[in-house]
Amino acid sequence: MKLEKSLTVDTINQNLLNIEYAVRGPIVQRAIQIERELEKGVPKPFDRVIRANIGDCHALGQKPITFIRQVLALASCPQLMSSPHVPQDVKERVQEILDDCTKGSVGSYSPSNGLRIVRSRVAQYISARDGIPAFPEDIWLGSGASDVIKAVLTMFIENVDGKPPAIMIPIPQYPLFSGTLSELGLRRANYYLDEENGWALQVDELERSWREASVESRVRAIVVINPGNPTGQVLTRSNIEEIVKFAYEHNLFIMADEVYQENIVCKPFYSFKKVMHEMGPPYSNMELASFVTCSKGWAAECGLRSGYVELVNLQPEVQRAYNTARAVMQCPTVLGQCILDCVMKPPSPGEPSYELFKKELSDVHQTLTERTNTAYETFNSIPGYFCNPIDGSMFAYPRISMPESAQLAAREVNMSPDEFYCLRLLEETGVCVVPGTGFGQLPGTFHFRTTILHPKDEFQHMMDAIRSFHINFLQMFS
Amino acid sequence: MKLEKSLTVDTINQNLLNIEYAVRGPIVQRAIQIERELEKGVPKPFDRVIRANIGDCHALGQKPITFIRQVLALASCPQLMSSPHVPQDVKERVQEILDDCTKGSVGSYSPSNGLRIVRSRVAQYISARDGIPAFPEDIWLGSGASDVIKAVLTMFIENVDGKPPAIMIPIPQYPLFSGTLSELGLRRANYYLDEENGWALQVDELERSWREASVESRVRAIVVINPGNPTGQVLTRSNIEEIVKFAYEHNLFIMADEVYQENIVCKPFYSFKKVMHEMGPPYSNMELASFVTCSKGWAAECGLRSGYVELVNLQPEVQRAYNTARAVMQCPTVLGQCILDCVMKPPSPGEPSYELFKKELSDVHQTLTERTNTAYETFNSIPGYFCNPIDGSMFAYPRISMPESAQLAAREVNMSPDEFYCLRLLEETGVCVVPGTGFGQLPGTFHFRTTILHPKDEFQHMMDAIRSFHINFLQMFS
Repeated sequence: MKLEKSLTVDTINQNLLNIEYAVRGPIVQRAIQIERELEKGVPKPFDRVIRANIGDCHALGQKPITFIRQVLALASCPQLMSSPHVPQDVKERVQEILDDCTKGSVGSYSPSNGLRIVRSRVAQYISARDGIPAFPEDIWLGSGASDVIKAVLTMFIENVDGKPPAIMIPIPQYPLFSGTLSELGLRRANYYLDEENGWALQVDELERSWREASVESRVRAIVVINPGNPTGQVLTRSNIEEIVKFAYEHNLFIMADEVYQENIVCKPFYSFKKVMHEMGPPYSNMELASFVTCSKGWAAECGLRSGYVELVNLQPEVQRAYNTARAVMQCPTVLGQCILDCVMKPPSPGEPSYELFKKELSDVHQTLTERTNTAYETFNSIPGYFCNPIDGSMFAYPRISMPESAQLAAREVNMSPDEFYCLRLLEETGVCVVPGTGFGQLPGTFHFRTTILHPKDEFQHMMDAIRSFHINFLQMFS
Repeated sequence: MKLEKSLTVDTINQNLLNIEYAVRGPIVQRAIQIERELEKGVPKPFDRVIRANIGDCHALGQKPITFIRQVLALASCPQLMSSPHVPQDVKERVQEILDDCTKGSVGSYSPSNGLRIVRSRVAQYISARDGIPAFPEDIWLGSGASDVIKAVLTMFIENVDGKPPAIMIPIPQYPLFSGTLSELGLRRANYYLDEENGWALQVDELERSWREASVESRVRAIVVINPGNPTGQVLTRSNIEEIVKFAYEHNLFIMADEVYQENIVCKPFYSFKKVMHEMGPPYSNMELASFVTCSKGWAAECGLRSGYVELVNLQPEVQRAYNTARAVMQCPTVLGQCILDCVMKPPSPGEPSYELFKKELSDVHQTLTERTNTAYETFNSIPGYFCNPIDGSMFAYPRISMPESAQLAAREVNMSPDEFYCLRLLEETGVCVVPGTGFGQLPGTFHFRTTILHPKDEFQHMMDAIRSFHINFLQMFS
C-alpha cells in the first residue's frame, strides 16, 4: 500500500510555505488558546485576553453605521421596504441599487468589475476628493482591498530582460504585501521608512533599495502605504511628489494603499492621483493603482469584504487582461458593493438619516482623536519607549529599547526579542499585540503594533498593563 | 519624455493573456451591445435579448428563498429583530450566528476559514448526506466555489522531478478550470467525456490522457465535475469507483466539483467522499477536495459569493500552508457565510418558516424537472441536433451537425463554426448562448451551452427561436 500523499510538503507550491502573516500568526494563535483556557477556569494573572492584533473595529466595540445596515437589510429583503421603522432615504437608496441588479435581486451576478451604479458613485467620490475627473471604467470593485491588491500584483509575475520581477515595499509594512509577494513568488525590494523623521520616505533610501534590488531583479512597482500601516504617518504633499518623480525615473508602477484615508486626525490627505495630476505631464500620465476598502474608514465593515481599486493610465491590453482575470472569479459580493455605495455617498444634510449618521461619524472620529493622542503620550511616557506622532490609521507602532540580557534570553528560546517580549506580555497581562518582525524593522530595533480603537476603559487598562509589564520586564532583565 | 508604460502587453504576466472565459466572453459582450442598441431604438428582428449564457437563476426570474433573505436582513440590522413580520425561527437563527461573531457584528472579521458555527453546520450536512463523519476543521469557507477552487489549484504550482505540473480536466468542462489553470500557469491534461454514453468518464480515456500528459508533465490532480457542467450528467456509483481507482493508481489528488449536487432531477447523487469511504483502504485514505457553492442549489445566491471546500486526508503541513495562504486574504464575507448556514440547515417541519420554504423549494425543483425534460425533448426534435438526457445542473449542451458550407463560411470570417452559429443565433433571434469552443468538444463536433431555467414562456420562446433559426440556417447552408 502506498504511504506517500499526492501532495506533500516537498511537492506543494513552495511559495506557500514561505508565507508569514503575523496579524493572524503564532502569538494570536496562543491568545486564542489562552481564551479557551480561561473559559475552562485555568488560573491566569488576568481575567480576559485583550485582542489588539488586528484592525477590526466592530470587534473592538465600534458600532456599525445605522444607515449602512438598514440599506443591507432592505437590499437583502425588499419585503421590509414597507417597514415604518426605516427612513425614506434608505428605501430610496435601496431602490436605486436594486434597479441596477438584474431582476432586482442582489443574488444575481453583477458585472465582474461591479454594479454600474456603485462604480459611478466611486468615481463621483474620487472626483470630489481630488477636484479632477474620475471614471467608472477605471474602477474595479473587489472583496476588500486584499483581493484587488493581490490581483494587481499578479500582473507583475513575469521576467523582464531575463530578470525576475521585484516589488518595492516599505519597512515596516502591512504583511498582506510580504505575504502576497511570497505566495506569488515575487521578490521584495525593501525600503526603510525613516523613523527619526516621522516615518517619512527618503529618496536616498528609495534609490538604495532600487539599486540593490536591480542587480539581480527587475523592479516593477513601488508600494506606498499612506496613511501608514503600522506606522500611522500621513505623507506630506512634497514627499509624495518626490516619490512620484522617483517612480518616474525608474519607470515604476505606483501602488498606493490609501485604505486609511478616512482615518486621519488633523492632517490633510493628498491622494497620489491628485498629486500626480497636478504635477502635470509626464507624471500625470503614469500608471497608478489606488486601493480603498470598506473594512477601514468610518464604516469598518471588515467582515463584509468590500473595496475597490482605481487603475489609471493603463495600456488598454493590460486593462483587458486584468478584466479577463477578474471575470473568471465572477464578481465581488453584491451586498459588499451596497456598503461601498453607502460609504461613497453617505446621507447628506436634510435627508432623514443625516442627523444620526452625523452623530455616529463624529463618535468614530472622536474616538480616533482621543486614542491616537493617548497612545502617543502614554507610550512616550514609558521608560525605553519611543512613539512617533500618530496622524492616522488605527495603530501605534512604538519602539522599545530592549535590554541586552532580554535579547540573549530570547535567542536562547529561538525567538526574536520582540516576539519574546510580546509573548511574555500576552502570558502575563492577556494583551495580544503583534511583534515588529511581522511588519519589519531596522535590524537591532524592536517594535510591536497595537490597535488603539478599544473602548476608553479597555484602552486605559491595556496601556496600564503594558506600562507595568514593561517596568517588571526591565527589572527582570537589567 | 518616455512613451513606454511600465506595464505593457510584453511585460505583463503572460499567463493572463491566455485566459479565456467564454461565459463572459465576446458573444456575451456583443449581447450587451445589442441590448444598448435596442434601448436606443435600433431596429432588430427581435424585441429583447434572452441571456442564456450563465447559470444565474435570480437573473432568470427565480425568486430568492424567503428564509435566507430574512436571516440576512436581521443579521445585518439586528434592530429589526423586534419586527412582528419576521418569524421566530429566523430570529433564533440570526441570534445563533451573531453569538459566534465577535461582539455580535457581521462586520467583525471571522476566522479565515469561516465562523465556527457555520463550519459545524457544513460538517453536519455532509455527515447526514454521506452517513459518515465530517469535521468542521476540514471545512474552509470561501467567496463562492471559484475562490476555493483557485486556492486549491494554487497548491499544485510546483515542478516535481523536474517536470511541470498538469491537472486533468474533463472536456467539455466549466471554463473556470481552464481559465484558472491558464492564470496559474498549470498545464491542462484534457480527458474527453463519452458523449455517446451519456457523458460518462471512460477509464481508457483517462489512461490515455494521463499517459500523453505524463511524457512532458507531472500529472498532479484530476478534476471531476459531478453533476456535469455543461453536460448535466450525474455519475453512477460504479463510474466514481473506477475514477477513484484510476486516481489511486497514479497518485492523483481528486478535486470533485460537486456544486450541482442539489440540482438533480431523479438520479441518486453519490459524493466522492462517500464512495471513497465505502471503498475502504487504501481509497478511503486518499486526498480529496469537494467544492460546494450557494450560487447553485436551490439558494442560487450567485451575487452573494458563498461556498466551501471540504479537504480530507491532507498532510498536516499541507493543510497548514493552505491555511496560511487563506489567512492573508482575511476571511470570506460573513453575510455569505450566513447564507451557507441557511443552506446547510434549512427550516425543518414544525418550524414557522417551514411551509413557505417547502413551497419555494418545490417550485425550484419543479422548474428544473420541467425544463430539463422540455430541453431534452425539444433539442432532440430539431433536425441535426442531439442532446443527452439531462440529469442535473441547469444547462443543456446539445450537439449540432454543421453543414460543410457553414463550416467554410465560418472559417472565412476567422471563427470556429460553433462561434459563427451562436453569433448568428444572437444577431437573428436575440438568444445569447455560449459556443462549445468555450467548454471544449471533440474535434469536428459542435455544441453550445444554454441555461434552461428561464420562466416557462420565455423558455418556450427561446426553444422556438432556436428551432426556426436552425431550420433557416440549414436552408442557407445546404
